This record gives sequence, structure tokens and C-alpha cells, in this order.
Amino acid sequence: MNPVRCAVVGVGMIGTEHAAILAASAEADLVACCDTDPARQNAVPAGVGFATDVAATLDLPGLEAVFVCTPQHLHRPVVEQALARNLAVFCEKPIAAALEDADAMINAAAVSDGSLVIGHTLRFSPEYIAVHDAVSNGDVGSVIHMAARWNAPDFEGRIISGRTTIPLEMMIHDIDVMRWLAGDVERVYAEASAVPVVGPGPDAMVATLRFRSGAIGVLDHNWIMASGTGLESDHRLAVFGSAGSAFVENRDTPAVVYGPDGVRYLRTTYRSHPNGIPFGALPTENLFFLRSVRDGRRWPIDLADARAALACAVALDESAGLGQPVPVTA
Amino acid sequence: MNPVRCAVVGVGMIGTEHAAILAASAEADLVACCDTDPARQNAVPAGVGFATDVAATLDLPGLEAVFVCTPQHLHRPVVEQALARNLAVFCEKPIAAALEDADAMINAAAVSDGSLVIGHTLRFSPEYIAVHDAVSNGDVGSVIHMAARWNAPDFEGRIISGRTTIPLEMMIHDIDVMRWLAGDVERVYAEASAVPVVGPGPDAMVATLRFRSGAIGVLDHNWIMASGTGLESDHRLAVFGSAGSAFVENRDTPAVVYGPDGVRYLRTTYRSHPNGIPFGALPTENLFFLRSVRDGRRWPIDLADARAALACAVALDESAGLGQPVPVTA
Amino acid sequence: MNPVRCAVVGVGMIGTEHAAILAASAEADLVACCDTDPARQNAVPAGVGFATDVAATLDLPGLEAVFVCTPQHLHRPVVEQALARNLAVFCEKPIAAALEDADAMINAAAVSDGSLVIGHTLRFSPEYIAVHDAVSNGDVGSVIHMAARWNAPDFEGRIISGRTTIPLEMMIHDIDVMRWLAGDVERVYAEASAVPVVGPGPDAMVATLRFRSGAIGVLDHNWIMASGTGLESDHRLAVFGSAGSAFVENRDTPAVVYGPDGVRYLRTTYRSHPNGIPFGALPTENLFFLRSVRDGRRWPIDLADARAALACAVALDESAGLGQPVPVTA
Amino acid sequence: MNPVRCAVVGVGMIGTEHAAILAASAEADLVACCDTDPARQNAVPAGVGFATDVAATLDLPGLEAVFVCTPQHLHRPVVEQALARNLAVFCEKPIAAALEDADAMINAAAVSDGSLVIGHTLRFSPEYIAVHDAVSNGDVGSVIHMAARWNAPDFEGRIISGRTTIPLEMMIHDIDVMRWLAGDVERVYAEASAVPVVGPGPDAMVATLRFRSGAIGVLDHNWIMASGTGLESDHRLAVFGSAGSAFVENRDTPAVVYGPDGVRYLRTTYRSHPNGIPFGALPTENLFFLRSVRDGRRWPIDLADARAALACAVALDESAGLGQPVPVTA
Repeated sequence: MNPVRCAVVGVGMIGTEHAAILAASAEADLVACCDTDPARQNAVPAGVGFATDVAATLDLPGLEAVFVCTPQHLHRPVVEQALARNLAVFCEKPIAAALEDADAMINAAAVSDGSLVIGHTLRFSPEYIAVHDAVSNGDVGSVIHMAARWNAPDFEGRIISGRTTIPLEMMIHDIDVMRWLAGDVERVYAEASAVPVVGPGPDAMVATLRFRSGAIGVLDHNWIMASGTGLESDHRLAVFGSAGSAFVENRDTPAVVYGPDGVRYLRTTYRSHPNGIPFGALPTENLFFLRSVRDGRRWPIDLADARAALACAVALDESAGLGQPVPVTA
Repeated sequence: MNPVRCAVVGVGMIGTEHAAILAASAEADLVACCDTDPARQNAVPAGVGFATDVAATLDLPGLEAVFVCTPQHLHRPVVEQALARNLAVFCEKPIAAALEDADAMINAAAVSDGSLVIGHTLRFSPEYIAVHDAVSNGDVGSVIHMAARWNAPDFEGRIISGRTTIPLEMMIHDIDVMRWLAGDVERVYAEASAVPVVGPGPDAMVATLRFRSGAIGVLDHNWIMASGTGLESDHRLAVFGSAGSAFVENRDTPAVVYGPDGVRYLRTTYRSHPNGIPFGALPTENLFFLRSVRDGRRWPIDLADARAALACAVALDESAGLGQPVPVTA
Repeated sequence: MNPVRCAVVGVGMIGTEHAAILAASAEADLVACCDTDPARQNAVPAGVGFATDVAATLDLPGLEAVFVCTPQHLHRPVVEQALARNLAVFCEKPIAAALEDADAMINAAAVSDGSLVIGHTLRFSPEYIAVHDAVSNGDVGSVIHMAARWNAPDFEGRIISGRTTIPLEMMIHDIDVMRWLAGDVERVYAEASAVPVVGPGPDAMVATLRFRSGAIGVLDHNWIMASGTGLESDHRLAVFGSAGSAFVENRDTPAVVYGPDGVRYLRTTYRSHPNGIPFGALPTENLFFLRSVRDGRRWPIDLADARAALACAVALDESAGLGQPVPVTA
Repeated sequence: MNPVRCAVVGVGMIGTEHAAILAASAEADLVACCDTDPARQNAVPAGVGFATDVAATLDLPGLEAVFVCTPQHLHRPVVEQALARNLAVFCEKPIAAALEDADAMINAAAVSDGSLVIGHTLRFSPEYIAVHDAVSNGDVGSVIHMAARWNAPDFEGRIISGRTTIPLEMMIHDIDVMRWLAGDVERVYAEASAVPVVGPGPDAMVATLRFRSGAIGVLDHNWIMASGTGLESDHRLAVFGSAGSAFVENRDTPAVVYGPDGVRYLRTTYRSHPNGIPFGALPTENLFFLRSVRDGRRWPIDLADARAALACAVALDESAGLGQPVPVTA
């Protein structure tokens, strides 16, 4: 397979990760990174070009694919430009920050000779796939209720709290997973914490989801995990069904160190680099995308699913503001 | 200390437990058990009297204390009769099934020379106390959000689903714990599963709690844990604060057996009987009560707290019916 | 039941624990504590007498029972004096530091109208009992191999390392448990760490046990757990059999706090005091002993078992010195 | 990077795994699989050639690399033939079943223009690397003692017990890891279970290792994990040092399912295939090897280490037979 000639637009927290993985991949030829902030050149892998102009980056000769890792409200303009050039586009989650942007992007993809996929990384995580398999195989029976948590460290919260919300940034992962497990959502309700910690807006939210199937779900998410305590994140999923139950327990990490500075839980399944080889869900997602550019294999998340997850997240923010449940239309 | 002369009224699931513990205790003299169903005589410890008449039981000469373990809606008449006789009354949680009953019982206690306490057992569990201590000591900082689960096995669900609700029977435990950790509740919202499994009513509910402090909480509870799978219950508490976090993880049991019939998690902290000695939160609660009869030590749950937990549970059932959040008045 | 009139001789780490539990027990009347070091008076519960003279303590009028908590090599003289007075004697593990002392104590018990039992506390721990039940019930099949660990914090190691050895102080617990599960030991082998940390002698030892049944076992124990790291102990038992396996995993504590000083695992099953009520294996052991004084119930550890565990521990120290396996005679 | 043209010799349990990963890799061109048993053709990926003749396979035009996955005692002849053809050789662990074979292979590698590496897969596992990093960084201080377990399911035990031993097949992994953490071994001692379960020889062994540094270690391994119980394996590593401790706990899997047939622990870090992309330590090891063929990057396990691990394993089998400790020369 010839390496896929690609670029990364937006070299923030997650764009830097993608660039590092692509630079180490024999199946990618990362020709450029682009960020409107010139200071981000520091984050670009050695030997890879850097530009501050998006259009010029997308016009690079022979470019086949682009990873869109900008702030959420800027997904749309970059994706539209890329699709206009018939590129294969990988766009980070959520698809956009507003439904009208998502709709415009989906329409642009429909008329482009390029393609658009959204990176809901948990769909590439072996443990979430294992739970989905258990549900599909009938081990759990009918899904009755689900609970998910995805908490982020306070140092991340300080960076992102000013520019997004808990539902759009954090809950979107688990909304997508729950929809994958239990289908369409009918109604949501959210409460936001009123105790300020790191952000201008709510630092924690809890929420309920009602599914058309009659199943129910619950979310509790924050970005305030005190990094000095040794517990910087807490990701969980529980699925309770009529015949059994299934769990993802990311706090039960396979490697733990108790050193002079306290405990460190060594998560290895999301991303790590044993002997310099990228490892985990994020490199797996990237590799799947690169191969799909060559062989057209089907991305496991439909654009309609990415849009539906966004619709739930938007409704959760609305519910938290209104103090009322908010219906979600299919 | 002279043993406390006591009786148990209602010898169902939990009354049987209390009777067994009291019969083995050197600090109790269990003189009688009472149940309107004569068949329950089977559940009475050897050498202990049995009656079907409540008034006659409460009139036993020298009786000092009574454990009220009847169905919830029958707590009030038994408690009122006992208080009229100036007995020390231990009443199982919830205080009652309706707020007017709770109020009547609290009023009866106020004018009696007897006493009334409500058995929220988690207040006697070392691990929940440890989490409360961590919050009191400031290790967690300000409480931001909490999540709790208490799922029961399907065989219990089949027994109790016809006569109570998920909030009144299961969530009441964790509502009390969350109020202990974060104060008064302002508003609740609940969604009930519409997928039938064991009960005539909802078998699972999820809910949000908003506290006056600005903290938020989430509950997900069921009584459908498929007992054939090896996982018959799942109890958890997570508390996330501005400075740290604290957890009760009852699925991490200290003893696990993998045998020909699959896995068995051996919970030991709630109740067990090493070498015939009652052990766990329930015997500890009983012992505290017996000593309080002698020395007047203060019960750790005020009647106002027991009533407030009931108010939340009633509001959760109301919310699930209305599809609207329900305010909880102090 | 009338409270058992008792005394504690030796008020060090464990004697202080026993005294506190007995002082809080309605079934004990703790009349005195005795220690040859007058400074230990500080450790005596309020209202309990203190003496430095053992004989005078044992001569207290009406004394029925004594808890012997002296250093190991002083168990024998105190036990012999107590048995000569026909007292009920609870002696801490190991029975003694030398086999000839153990034999003398067993002989003294045989001719006394008093009694002698040895406190192998794990026999009163619900989780170790649960694993033993699983083996007895056949869930595990034939026992093939076992592994046990019991590590202590460095601050304890600094106190005890000068006066005992890893096998006598730490491994003795798990030797007794393994013999309970798999019968007599035929041969042992031990290696001692040569890297100094807290003690004058070895701070860690590893060992193999061969059982007459053909089963095998392994031990790894230390007293160097760095208390600043948050992990101060690590207790485990694994039993692998022809039909299944069983585990005690004391690191999976039901309550965990992540605070500004790092992680704290809150062990609750060994000893804790919810609302002031003693709770755990140690209070359970004490209560069983007090009741056995009244009703003669049989202690779950025979003196022959306590002696056999000591024989293994002595053989392990010998093996570590010789660099050779050492046979253990029945 | 041009794909590496390679073959797999020996298509048993592990050869089948390598073939599947290589067939899915864009960096490999798997041209043939070879097994002397024609029935193994079933295990060959679609589109890949199959042969029963080793020499003919190694003579395939343009072949660059070979994966040697034969039974242990046949590693040497295949490796020697491959090195004689100047191929890049990946050989499964242990390097050989006898030290003289290992020496011959190392000598052959020294004079070949090809290369030889041994696949100790745990060196590519993120969690074992994380523990090694913690030791290297000083978080654990001086290594004092270590404990490791690697138990295999009984269905595997039935296949392999007739042709290898517990030290050569199972313990070799952890011996290599412990040497990586604590240096050379000075002396070993082993006890073998005498209770037959699946194999003609011992199904379980326990062992001690003494290191030149003064550190000590302990192993307990079997291949009898009763697969019907839900717990088919149990892999652990604990490292205790003067300043802290570190753990690999593979039973704490991130995904667990409780279904009608009991519990299933879903291990994902060794090998799994999310959306068809190979994932885990084994694919990572393969990818590192393929790249080393192109760019000469240094394999993380020296041949001297692979030989030293074998020397320990051979000494353990000898010790179990003799009932004596056996010195290990450097």
C-alpha cells in the first residue's frame, strides 16, 4: 500500500496526537500541519511542514486526506473547503458545535467526490467494542439501563472550559456509545453544577437519557479531577440488561505504580508508545482511516449517528439552562 | 449491661435478619417475633416466641424495645402503638411510604417517653463512614458531583416489586448518603425504564438530584441483576470534589471464588457470620441501637433526615410519572 | 451473660488493640493491663488499671481470662503462670518463638483446669473463611497451588524488625491458612533479601512450601511498604485447584480516597470502629473468645495447628540461613 | 516503506497468530506458511501459500524474514537454515529447549549476514514497560522482592503439557521480566505439584529466584485454569522496592461481561482486533520487527538475555527434580 498523503489542520491537544501517530506510521505520509497560531509550530513532528494558511495547506499537491482538529465551531469551514477539493476528511468529534453546521457538512459530503468521517474514538476501543459485542450477542438481554462517566483532569479543564461545554466535549463520547447500544434517544434532562472550580461555565453535569426502546441512561461527567491526587480521570460504562450486565472499568488499569509522589494509574489502552510503536484506540482509529482511503472500507460511525449524538448534546445544554427535560427528534 | 428485652414485628426478608442477629447477641434478650402471616413462624430463631397479634406482642411484660420491619405502609400503625407504650423503637427505612405517615410518626415520637430511630444501615457501614470522613476532613474539597448505584438481584426484585418502588426501596439508601455528604436537595428528576423484566412497575430508574449547595448527583438503580450470571448486586458511590475524590466500590469484594458454576463475589462487610459471630453493618447498627437504649447515645440519623430522604424518594416517583423535574421543599 | 473479667498482659501494638476492644465490649470486664514498661500506661483505656507486675496482675481477685500480647519469646512464662492459676488464656500468634516453648505451653495447658488458645486472626476473617468454605465445598476441586502475601508498612517494620523474623511475625498467618486449606507441610525453602531497608535482618523473604498432599505453595512477605506512597500493605491469597480458583484480594478495598496527599485505601474488614462500635476480624475473634469462656465453644485453631505453623516458620528461617530446603516433620 | 517479504514456519497456536497479524499488516508481505503437518494448512490466512518443506520455504525468491514458531526443540535447525540464507529471523521464546542449542544459534547469528531476535512479548506490553519505567525512574527505589504469576487455561495445558515444561513454556516470560528489572540470577529453587490434572508432568510449579543484587523473587505458574469457571488466566507482577511498589494486574481487565454462562473477562492489551485492526503486544512486537528489518533499530532483548532466561528455566526444572537449589552461572 502506498502511504496516504495527508495533513493535519489544528494542532491543539488532539491534533498534536494525530500528527505524532501519522508521522510514525508507514501507511501515512504526513506532509503538513496547519494552525492559525504560529506558536503551534512547536507541536509539529520533526521533518513535517507547517503553515498558518488552511487553503494553502489543502492545496498542497497530491494531498489525499486531511485530519480536522480545530475548535468545534471551526470544523465546518475547514471540512467544507476540504470536501470542495474532494479530499478524504477525518473530523474530530463532535461533528460540529451546532446542528446547522452539521447539516451543512453532511450535505457537502453528499455532493463531494471526497468523503467525511467523524472520529468517535471509543468505537475503536477494544473494551467498548467488547461490551457492544456482548449486547449484540444477547449476553446482556434487552438493555434496561446504562451509566457512563468520563471525567478529565483539571489541567485539561482549565484549557477547554472556556470554549466548549461538558455535553459537547465530554458527554458526546458516551452519548454515541449509548446510542450504539440502545438506539435513538427520545428525551434528555441535565443538571449542571453551580459550584465553580476551573471554568467560567459548569465544570460538572449529570444527565438522564430516555431511549425510544424504553431503556434509560445516566451520565455524570466533569473536567475537574484534581491531578495532584493521583486520580486524573475516571472512565466507566455499565450496561444492565434483562439477562446480564457488562462493564468497562478504565480505573482498573493493568499497571499501577505507588511511588514517592503517590499513586499513578498507567492507562495503556487509549494511547501509549511501547518501544516507540503507537498503541491504543487512537492509533487504531487512524490506521483504519488510512486504509479506508485506499480500500473504501466502511467507517463504523454513520454521519447520521454523529449528528444524532450532537443533537443530544445540544439538548442537554438546553435542558440544563431551562431546568426542563428536552425532547430529541430523530 | 443487662440485655435489652426486645421484639421484632414483621419477619420478612429484613426482619428475619434482625431476629437472627438479636438472638445471637449477648446484649439483647429477644422475647418474641410477630407477623400477621402465621407461616412466618418458620423464620423465627429457635427458642424465641411467635405471635400474630401486634398489640399482644407489644404488651409483653418488661418489653423495652421493638424492631419494626413490616411493609413500609404499615410502619406507622406499629410505631404509633409502640410509642404509645413508651418503647424504644427501631424502624426500618424508609421511615414510611407517605409523608403524612412520617409526620404523624415524628409527632408521636415527640410526645412519647419512648424513642424512635430509623435504620439507614449505610450510616453504620465502615466504608460509607470512611467516605463521609474524607469529605468532612476536607480531602475532597467542595462536593461537586456524586453518583450512586445500588442494584438488587432479580429474585429479590420478584418479591418486592409488587409492593414498593425503586426510589422508596432502593434509592432511599443513597439519597440519605448524598444528603449526609452534601446537604439539602432542591430539585429531582427521574426516568423510569419502560422495559418490563420482573415487576408490574418500573424495574429500573435513573435520576438526578440538585442540591441547595449547587452540587449535583445522579442515581441508577434496579432490582433485576440476573442471579445466574454471578453478579447479583452492584453497589457504588463516587464523590467528586474540588480537591479530590472518594469511592465506595462494593464490587471489589475481598473474596472471590471461581467455581464450576461460575464466579461468586463474597461480600462480607454488610453481613456475614464468621464462626457464628454476626459481622457487618447490620449487626453493628443493631448493637448501637441496643446500647443507645441503655445509655441514650445519639442515633446518627435525625428523624428530620429520614423524612427528607422520603420526601426526595416520593418526588422521584412523582417526577417519573410527570416527566418533569419536581422541587423538594426543605 | 455476665461479662468475662479479664486482663491484658503486654500493651504493645496488638495488646493496645485488644485492650481497646475489650474496654468497649459489653461482654468483657477489663480490669487491668500489665506491661513491664511503665511508659505503656499511656496506651491503657480510660478507667482500666495498670500494673508492671505480671504475677500481681494474674492474681487479681476474680480474674477469669488473660490476653497474652508480650513479645514472642515471653509468651511461655506468662502463659505458664496464667495456666497455673487456671485462667482462660488467649495468646497471640505465633504460639512461641521456639518449638520447645510451644511444647511446654501445650503440656501446661493439658494439665491445667484453665485453657489455652492461639489467636490466628485470619481464621476469624470473613474473606478467608469464605475461601476455606469454597475449598471445603469442592468449588475449587483438589488444591494444586497457593500463593499468599502479607506485607506490612515500613513504620511497623522499623518497630518489629529488631525482635522477630519475617516467617515468625508475618508468614505465620499465611502458613496457618495454607495448612488449613491443604494439610500438613512436608518441606520448605526460603530466600531472604540481602538488600537492607529498615531492619538489622532480612526485610523480605520469599518461600516455597510442599504439602504432603502433593500441593505446593509460595509466600512473599515484607515489612517495608513505603507508607508515603499510599500503599501501606498488600495482603493476598490465591488458591488454584483442579476445578476452580479462589482469591482474597485485600488491596481491592471497598473505600478509597484520593486527596491532596494522594491515595488512601480504607481497609475496613480487619478492624475499624463505625460509630464507635468495634468492627472486623479482631473484635470478632475477641468476642468468640469471651463467649467460649462462658459456654466452652471450641476454638477453631487446635494447639497442634499452632505448633505446626510455628514448625514451618522456624524451618523457613533455618532454610534461609542454610540455603537448603528443610523438611518439616508432622 | 516496502513491505517485508516474510514467511512463518510452524503454524501452531502462536504461529497462527503471527500469520494472521502479518497477513493484515501493510508493512508485511506474507508469502508462505510452512508446517510439517499438512493439516495445518487450515490455519493459513486466505491467499497465503502453504508448504510442508522448510528448506523450500526458506528458498522462496526474495524472502527477507522468517518467523520461527515450531516446537522449542526444533527452533535450532530452522533458525540455522534461515541464518545460513542470511534472513532476518524472529524466533519465539524460549530461544531453545536446551542451552547447547541456544549457544549454537547465537554462534550462527554471529557469523551470518542475517539477524536473530527472540520474541519475549512482555517486553512489548505497555503495562510491563510502564513498570520497568517506574523502576528505571527510581519510583520504586532498590528492588527488594518481586512476585509473578502467569497461569494458562486448561485447554491450552492439555495441548502443550506433553511437549514442554512449566518453566520453559510459562515461567520463561516472567524470568525475563524479572532479569530486566533486577539483573542476573544467582540461584533458583522450584517445587512441582504432584497432583495430576491435565498433563503427564507437573501442571503447576512454584519457585524462588535469588538475584546477584540481593533481591529475591517468587513465581507461581500453572496451565490448569478451569475454563468453565470464567477465569481462564491470571497474570500478575508485583515489584516491591525500598521507595515504592509497582504492579501489573491483568485480572483487572477493562471490560467484563456477566452473561448467562457466567463471567467473561475481556483482555484487550495482549491481542484483539477492533474493527479488524490487530491490537496489542503481539502486533506491536511484529511491527517493531518488520521495521527493524528495514531500519536496523535495536531489538530490546539481547540474545544473551534470552539465553540467560533459558538457563534459569532449565535450572528450575533441574531443581524441581533434585529437591535442591541450583546455582545459575552468568
